[in-house]
Parts: sequence; C-alpha cells; structure tokens
Amino acid sequence: MDVEVLEGVFDANERIARENESLFREKGVLAVNLMASPGAGKTSLISRTLELLGDRVRTGVIEGDIASSVDAEKIKAYGVPVVQINTGGACHLDAAMIRQALEHIDLQLLDLLIIENVGNLVCPAEFRLGEGLRVMILSVAEGHDKPLKYPLMFSESQVLVVNKIDLLGLGDFDPAELRSTIRRMNPEMRIFEVSCRTGEGLKDWADWLVRRVEEGRRKP
Amino acid sequence: MDVEVLEGVFDANERIARENESLFREKGVLAVNLMASPGAGKTSLISRTLELLGDRVRTGVIEGDIASSVDAEKIKAYGVPVVQINTGGACHLDAAMIRQALEHIDLQLLDLLIIENVGNLVCPAEFRLGEGLRVMILSVAEGHDKPLKYPLMFSESQVLVVNKIDLLGLGDFDPAELRSTIRRMNPEMRIFEVSCRTGEGLKDWADWLVRRVEEGRRKP
Repeated sequence: MDVEVLEGVFDANERIARENESLFREKGVLAVNLMASPGAGKTSLISRTLELLGDRVRTGVIEGDIASSVDAEKIKAYGVPVVQINTGGACHLDAAMIRQALEHIDLQLLDLLIIENVGNLVCPAEFRLGEGLRVMILSVAEGHDKPLKYPLMFSESQVLVVNKIDLLGLGDFDPAELRSTIRRMNPEMRIFEVSCRTGEGLKDWADWLVRRVEEGRRKP
Repeated sequence: MDVEVLEGVFDANERIARENESLFREKGVLAVNLMASPGAGKTSLISRTLELLGDRVRTGVIEGDIASSVDAEKIKAYGVPVVQINTGGACHLDAAMIRQALEHIDLQLLDLLIIENVGNLVCPAEFRLGEGLRVMILSVAEGHDKPLKYPLMFSESQVLVVNKIDLLGLGDFDPAELRSTIRRMNPEMRIFEVSCRTGEGLKDWADWLVRRVEEGRRKP
C-alpha cells in the first residue's frame, strides 16, 4: 500500500518534470538543479557565478529552502530575478514547486535558471525538476568518502563542483581518492575544483557553463 | 490519501520508538541519537568520544548509512560492539531499524549506545528512535545561518556540538551569532564547541556525557 502511493508520487513528479523540461527547451533556457549538503556553498557558488557571468548570460534564480529567505536576500543584491520557495518541512524540491515558482519568472527574458535545492545529499537526487543539468557541490570539509555513502547523488549528477579547496591540507581530504571513486561510479562526471572564498578555479566553471548555455541556444 | 498514509508511518514509528525507549530504560542504557549533515564529523566525534570514555563507560555503536560500511569499519577498530544499518536509500533511520539492530547487541553489557544517523539535517529530526538524548553536530565549515534554514533539527535536538572550531577565522562563521539564534529557538540547548581534529573542547563533552550516563544509572 505504501509502495503504491510512493510510486504514484514519483510518477506524478516525472510527468510535471517533463512538462517543465519542455517549457525550458521551448524558451531556450538552461535550467540547472544545484544540489549539496547544508553549508557546502550552494549560495556562494551562485553568487560567484553571477559575478563571473556578468552580462554574458541573462540569469534567474530559484531558491529552495525549508524555511527562511536568507539566501534569496543575498542573491537579490545581484539584481537578478529571484523566487524563494519554502518547502515547509519537505527535504527536497519537486517539479510541482518549480512549476509554481515559474509563474513568477519571465523565462522569455532568461538564458539560464539556477535552482538551488534544499541542502541535502539524499532526497533531492530522487526528484527531477525538469532541469537540463544536475550539478552537485561537495565541500572539502565534508571528506572524500562521501560518494560511497551517498551514491545516488554522485551517480545522478552530471557535474561535481568540489568547493573550499582553500581548506585542502587542513584535514585529510584526498582529491585523488575522490577522483578515483568518481571514475568508478560515474565516469562521465565533469569535475571542477574551486574555492568560492578565494575565487580559485571559478573562471573555468563559469566559462564552461556559458558554453553549455550557448549550445542550448543553438539547438532547434 | 497521501497524508493518511504518512500519518500511519509516523504513528507506527512512534509506537516502536516507545518500545525501544522502554527497553533502554529497563537495561539502564543511555541511547544517543547523533545527527548532522554529511561530513560534519559524526564518526570522528564517536571515535574521539570512545577514546576519552575509555573504561569509564561500556559503549556500543549503531552506524546508520544509506550504503557502505566505511564508518562501522572505523569504529570496530576501537574494540566496541558495532552494528551497521544500511537504509538502502532511506534518508534517515527509524525506530524499526533500531529494533532490528538491537537483536545483534547485548544491551545487558552496555551503559551507552551511540546511534549515528544518516548524514542529513532534515529527515532524521522527524523520526524518534527511542533515544534518551538527541545530539546534533554543526561544522564550522557549514556556516552559522543553519538554524534558520533547518529549524526542526535545531529545535528538536537537546545538545549541539559545534565541530571543526580549528577552522574558525578561515571563513565568516560567527559563534556569537549562532548562540544568539539558538537562544531564541531552543534556549535549553546545551552547546559544546570542539575540534575532533585537534581535540580541543572534547574533554568537557565527554565528561558531561559520562555524568548523563551515571544519572541514568541512578534512576529506578
């Protein structure tokens, strides 16, 4: 009985996610589903990315949080369209929440929509939003063993941003060990190593993202 | 319909949690539900605590992970009884999982049972396990704004261990700001500031825990 209901929830989400996906494609918008543990640096990465993209890409942001609007307030300072979703307890965003948020964003005016998911390395990986790209962040402070413990997130994401590389050497984080695990689990995964604090590595990430946005525009 | 099933799940969990709780009380065991984000330092805190408790307290550990047994392997090295629970995707432990794990642990031989929950600042706060004490860890690397964004975890936990204080000053973590938020949200919360890497602050935590175990023993 529980299982049937659960499948129902997943099916409904998939259907709405596909509708969102069609809408993004029709409007030529690359939607990025940005996922990570609490405090890994999702909002910092969005802030830094907005600075680096500048006028090259017209960007909007959806902020997902269980409660509060502290992240949306930070992002508003960059003068881009921002919508805050409060999930009211739910541990992840879902496609229906995104559809509702889209009523408050004019996709016609955007090339890129960054969706900051709830800070959680588990549940967000199970719910597609209609995104064109799934990006996850792992902070150096979290440790290099995380793919073994949260395998779905690391196998479902297409891009891994390793953040806080300014902390390398202060703990026992081993980037080579992480890369070797990722090669086994998800060999196609693109990895960027950055520090949102010092700025290191962020230009490569931003330039790559711009190319992805441009590729999307060229497609019919 | 969904809501009814969900209430059913919560009710069933509460019932089993109360049974676990009775069992712990009967056996004079303090059960600690240890919760935190991925990489905040749950396994490190358990390791350090085992070192500091030494022979003073007979301790057992239940390790909860979605997948893998890397944490249980680490803890086994301390020569204490360890049971690994793999949730197979589930984002939190529940009372039934604990009941099942208890078939493999002789509570008669223990004073303290530390239960490491799945790395997640959201879902574990919703499911009681029958624990006598809810302890959460927040790593300095995660930022001081987390209580606003994950309010249930910070209001349901009775103890907050702030870990990685050796990283203070490297980011913008403000301990005073954190304390002020906690005072508003959960004024009874006991806060310890520690570094599992340097050992700073851990003796206070371990001594306090020993006192809690002894208080439990004195009760009828």
